Amino acid sequence: MSKLRVAVFASGQGTNFQALADAVRDQKLDVTIELLVCDKPSAPVVERARLAGVDAFVFKPKDYPSREAYETEIAAELERRGVGLIVLAGYMRIVTPVLVDAYYGRMINIHPSLLPAFLGVNGIGQAWEYGVKLTGVTVHYVDGGLDSGPIIAQRAVEVEQDDTESSLAERIHATEQALLPWVVQQIAHGRVKLDGRRVAIG
Amino acid sequence: MSKLRVAVFASGQGTNFQALADAVRDQKLDVTIELLVCDKPSAPVVERARLAGVDAFVFKPKDYPSREAYETEIAAELERRGVGLIVLAGYMRIVTPVLVDAYYGRMINIHPSLLPAFLGVNGIGQAWEYGVKLTGVTVHYVDGGLDSGPIIAQRAVEVEQDDTESSLAERIHATEQALLPWVVQQIAHGRVKLDGRRVAIG
Repeated sequence: MSKLRVAVFASGQGTNFQALADAVRDQKLDVTIELLVCDKPSAPVVERARLAGVDAFVFKPKDYPSREAYETEIAAELERRGVGLIVLAGYMRIVTPVLVDAYYGRMINIHPSLLPAFLGVNGIGQAWEYGVKLTGVTVHYVDGGLDSGPIIAQRAVEVEQDDTESSLAERIHATEQALLPWVVQQIAHGRVKLDGRRVAIG
Repeated sequence: MSKLRVAVFASGQGTNFQALADAVRDQKLDVTIELLVCDKPSAPVVERARLAGVDAFVFKPKDYPSREAYETEIAAELERRGVGLIVLAGYMRIVTPVLVDAYYGRMINIHPSLLPAFLGVNGIGQAWEYGVKLTGVTVHYVDGGLDSGPIIAQRAVEVEQDDTESSLAERIHATEQALLPWVVQQIAHGRVKLDGRRVAIG
């Protein structure tokens, strides 16, 4: 059986991209990372992809008349490469129905909070300001709303007494880097079933 | 040193009242439960208080012209009895500034979700419908908003693959019954410090 082909979308550091690439390299994740999609040519994740031998589709949103225009181009590229799963991993752009409709149930996002708490940008900072004692990480299918799709997996991260926002962020990022490859592996092995808002694994 | 005097407010079954009363009986919780306040004369919690030898202030909201009217009466009773901590444990009424202002920092609430997710009524059902993989229990100080006060403690409860809403509710209630006496004990021993939205324990 041929491996699931994955496209990773990212805008920044690319630590979650790296976690996936490392898991593939270490044969802990049975997929092919077919493509990195990045909307920021100067983002460190672009160099990570090069070092990992992963092709990159790098674009500037400004070069296109609309979101739909660049997404149509991306969708064609994904189609051509037989991509079966999109992983949004720190991709800081709104995704439109061009991709959402084409990939519903085959596009996931990782978010640094226990959704539906602290959705949108800066989930870690929001939780820190609120003063919660528990936060965490969520991986969910992407639907048309803001971080609102069916939840696949969540992991808790405790806020410790002597935490700063940055020490908390470190533990959340470490949790992301563990959870995301695990979820992608479950999907790759056909263990994840989506039914309405319910997601069963195994 | 005299023990902290606690008033428990409840409207229904009173399982959290019972958890507190049992902890006091078993000398695991160093407070006096001075009073049960209940807005439903037929609620099972009233009988639990009787069996535990706890006085009850039972009232019918309809007998009063306003919320403020019955709360003023309750506040006087609490004052008379030297109550130093109010625990809202399944009390299904809005609390007004009459009590909130008099007891800010000395009134806590237990809520069956990981706040700020799923606030308001039926926190368990809301989380179940949403399809989260992690929910839990929150104990927080009561402020003027809806379940919005500073968070003292949170415990996670995983949603299992074969859960029903009612099996999930059972584990959440068990978690409440463990967490609430623990938090009250921390307060009784002066270990809980409130500073703005931050709460430190220990």
